[in-house]
Amino acid sequence: MEMPVPKPGVLARKPELVTRLRAVLPHDAVIDAPEEVKAYECDALTAYRCAPLLAVLPASTEEVSAVLKICHDMGVPVVPRGAGTSLAGGSLPTADSVILGVARLREVLEVNYPDRYIRVQTGMTNLSVTGAVESDGFFYAPDPSSQLACAISGNIAMNSGGAHCLKYGVTTNNLLGVTMVMADGEVVEIGGAEMEAAGLDLLGLICGSEGQLGVVTEATLRILPKPEGARPVLMGFDSNEVAGACVADIIRSGLIPVAIEFMDRPIIRATEAFAKAGYPECEALLIVEVEGSEQEIADQLARIIGIAERHNPVEIRESQSADESARIWLGRKSAFGAMGQMGDYICLDGTIPVGELPNVLKRIGELGEEYGHMVGNVFHAGDGNMHPLILFNANEPGQLASAEALGAEILKLCVDVGGCLTGEHGVGVEKRDLMTHQFAPADLEAQMAVKDVFDPKWLLNPAKVFPLHVSDSRRADG
Amino acid sequence: MEMPVPKPGVLARKPELVTRLRAVLPHDAVIDAPEEVKAYECDALTAYRCAPLLAVLPASTEEVSAVLKICHDMGVPVVPRGAGTSLAGGSLPTADSVILGVARLREVLEVNYPDRYIRVQTGMTNLSVTGAVESDGFFYAPDPSSQLACAISGNIAMNSGGAHCLKYGVTTNNLLGVTMVMADGEVVEIGGAEMEAAGLDLLGLICGSEGQLGVVTEATLRILPKPEGARPVLMGFDSNEVAGACVADIIRSGLIPVAIEFMDRPIIRATEAFAKAGYPECEALLIVEVEGSEQEIADQLARIIGIAERHNPVEIRESQSADESARIWLGRKSAFGAMGQMGDYICLDGTIPVGELPNVLKRIGELGEEYGHMVGNVFHAGDGNMHPLILFNANEPGQLASAEALGAEILKLCVDVGGCLTGEHGVGVEKRDLMTHQFAPADLEAQMAVKDVFDPKWLLNPAKVFPLHVSDSRRADG
Repeated sequence: MEMPVPKPGVLARKPELVTRLRAVLPHDAVIDAPEEVKAYECDALTAYRCAPLLAVLPASTEEVSAVLKICHDMGVPVVPRGAGTSLAGGSLPTADSVILGVARLREVLEVNYPDRYIRVQTGMTNLSVTGAVESDGFFYAPDPSSQLACAISGNIAMNSGGAHCLKYGVTTNNLLGVTMVMADGEVVEIGGAEMEAAGLDLLGLICGSEGQLGVVTEATLRILPKPEGARPVLMGFDSNEVAGACVADIIRSGLIPVAIEFMDRPIIRATEAFAKAGYPECEALLIVEVEGSEQEIADQLARIIGIAERHNPVEIRESQSADESARIWLGRKSAFGAMGQMGDYICLDGTIPVGELPNVLKRIGELGEEYGHMVGNVFHAGDGNMHPLILFNANEPGQLASAEALGAEILKLCVDVGGCLTGEHGVGVEKRDLMTHQFAPADLEAQMAVKDVFDPKWLLNPAKVFPLHVSDSRRADG
Repeated sequence: MEMPVPKPGVLARKPELVTRLRAVLPHDAVIDAPEEVKAYECDALTAYRCAPLLAVLPASTEEVSAVLKICHDMGVPVVPRGAGTSLAGGSLPTADSVILGVARLREVLEVNYPDRYIRVQTGMTNLSVTGAVESDGFFYAPDPSSQLACAISGNIAMNSGGAHCLKYGVTTNNLLGVTMVMADGEVVEIGGAEMEAAGLDLLGLICGSEGQLGVVTEATLRILPKPEGARPVLMGFDSNEVAGACVADIIRSGLIPVAIEFMDRPIIRATEAFAKAGYPECEALLIVEVEGSEQEIADQLARIIGIAERHNPVEIRESQSADESARIWLGRKSAFGAMGQMGDYICLDGTIPVGELPNVLKRIGELGEEYGHMVGNVFHAGDGNMHPLILFNANEPGQLASAEALGAEILKLCVDVGGCLTGEHGVGVEKRDLMTHQFAPADLEAQMAVKDVFDPKWLLNPAKVFPLHVSDSRRADG
């Protein structure tokens, strides 16, 4: 992965930078020893590594502001980092950058049940936000698979979704306001507890902007009352295409299950070997979950099963107990781990119109054979957000490159059928060069001109989102 | 209402402009006779009028592009106009501007049921979009009160909502993509049938941007299957505060009715005199509607009535027939007309956190008495979107000014409790000067810098959204 040439002079001025940062932060919040800095050399896209110049761990909006002021003043790039769970290299450092970790920003600032929001510092993990309100019967809806570890800051940067986003929407639908520190250290409030905002929708612009526009330190999040109950049904089909058609029919019917998860044969096999969830022998499996009162659950499941039966299912198994529900979900949740047992893999993240599912699944199978890689599909099918897993052997020369080439083909396919490059993982460094497949030069120019407004010096999260040759020329201009 | 000084030279070059526009448009699509141009002197905010230089009615994206190219070239401001139903003066002309009406852009371009979208030209009315798909059992969810007349282009410009947006979201939640003509005539595609977009969220930025960033000529809209059935319940309370508290409790419970409409005593009286809907004698009335299967409806209404009963309702009346449902809604839908019978009125549009409803309704009553105006409240309560109607006598000198001053006080109150200036009508000319109450100078500067990116010459929809002295200085810079 090509990374930008370090900014001239920055490396030599590290001692001055450390001195200035130490003047505004507690001693242990500035990490400059090379062996400690190494901990920040990558995120969950571990194929790419680059140690930053140093790392800082501010504990308040004021400290974040002080750090950004100094870096802005000295022309030092800053890479914001949540929990480092990005699968797209969203917080991969550059050699001349300061990693700004939000791990110490973990306070709940306000809980308001009548207006259904919580205000938190963004270093809190996704799951701990639900933890702060669940004893009162509430929860925070977006639930990425990494929810135990991932930070709200990263959720906002990538506009994260999760299994439940079919019903509740993704982060942008559950974010009411932010406190953001601009590239020059200025602190701004955008949005708030109200549902709309006058003027241009800057909150919508910031959600999903991958740390390009500012560092979000506090967030006002919508919370929802927990449903009375939930129940999954497991449905097996004898081809991916038929399972895909069944998903399209469920969506078309107007039912909104809380989740429709899809697993194909490679995933089912790996999962059964690993977690023994008791899945049926079949080519493709759907887990469809609905929630509500007992009566609502029964009513919705009956309609969903009615639709499935028109597609000649191999098996339909409605969960009969909390135990069985947990076992059904256990398989899905361990799917990534199970594939990890079988070898190295790349996890893709593309989005397509739901009606294209059968067609795209078929093409992915063909492309996998062409490139000679096993591809497993396990994903949120209800909203067309696919996560093909491409298996490869990292110890065999050329395998990573060919897996990446296959990944690029699959993502281009997503774009070509009217979809796009990313559903919830973001562009990061992983897909920056594919942006030219989705966007014309004028489109990219418009996006970069908006970045110019927020970060005129292009210091925030360098080398991400935009193709390197394009963003590099921008930095030179700035 | 102060309007900008006409751009030097534009008025004198009208003949040249007409000649150039006639070269790219059919003869009857360029309207320059003063008596015909006068038809475009105002929108639904009729207190303000200003005839434009001329009006054009292009019938395709190409014709819109040709018009914008010419105007950009000659430095002529352009005011895009949907159906002219804006209550905020969103399409009020300036004397030096070309009104660009989208009334001839009325084609359905594509209908796709498996992926649940429709692609239309944006001059189509809101209701005709539903009309295009309802025989197949689908509908387009956002339903502004003006849906019979208002155009999709205006819905996108103002991010319109409606009674049903509590459940289905507003325009931004139902818009998948746009074809937009930039200020210089370039045609761009943003978004599409997929659910997410890589890079910066320009689609979210454009929705609600009030014609400041470009002219949207085509839109891909989400369509939904019609629910099996729907049923309202009418609930009367003996004070606004108690009705407001009941709304907050329903929202807090996690139920999502399709609509919660609120009417206070002045509205109930005016409506009864006008439409004879059979509303009970009480201080505040809620219409709560739920939808789904018969069983779901019964289940949800039982829970809602249970919550209402804890607030000592004067009356609870569940609709027993389609006829009764129609009568219940007839009152609500004729509320604006009924108030119009009683005198002139200003219709406000502010948004507040739902928990603030009781407090804000009380303060509105007090402010109304202070200023000596009757204020009626009829609004979408479930999402905190208020529409206070301020009565005044247009024939009595000073009454409009004092009604406007009261309106400004009420909107400031909305902002002060954590809400904002507009829910769905937009800022337009009406609220541009209040923007400084909601936003700090740096916030406005950021929004205007984003406009600079899309419309560097500040030719699109001048004198709206931003305070005039601020946007005027911008135009002079440009």
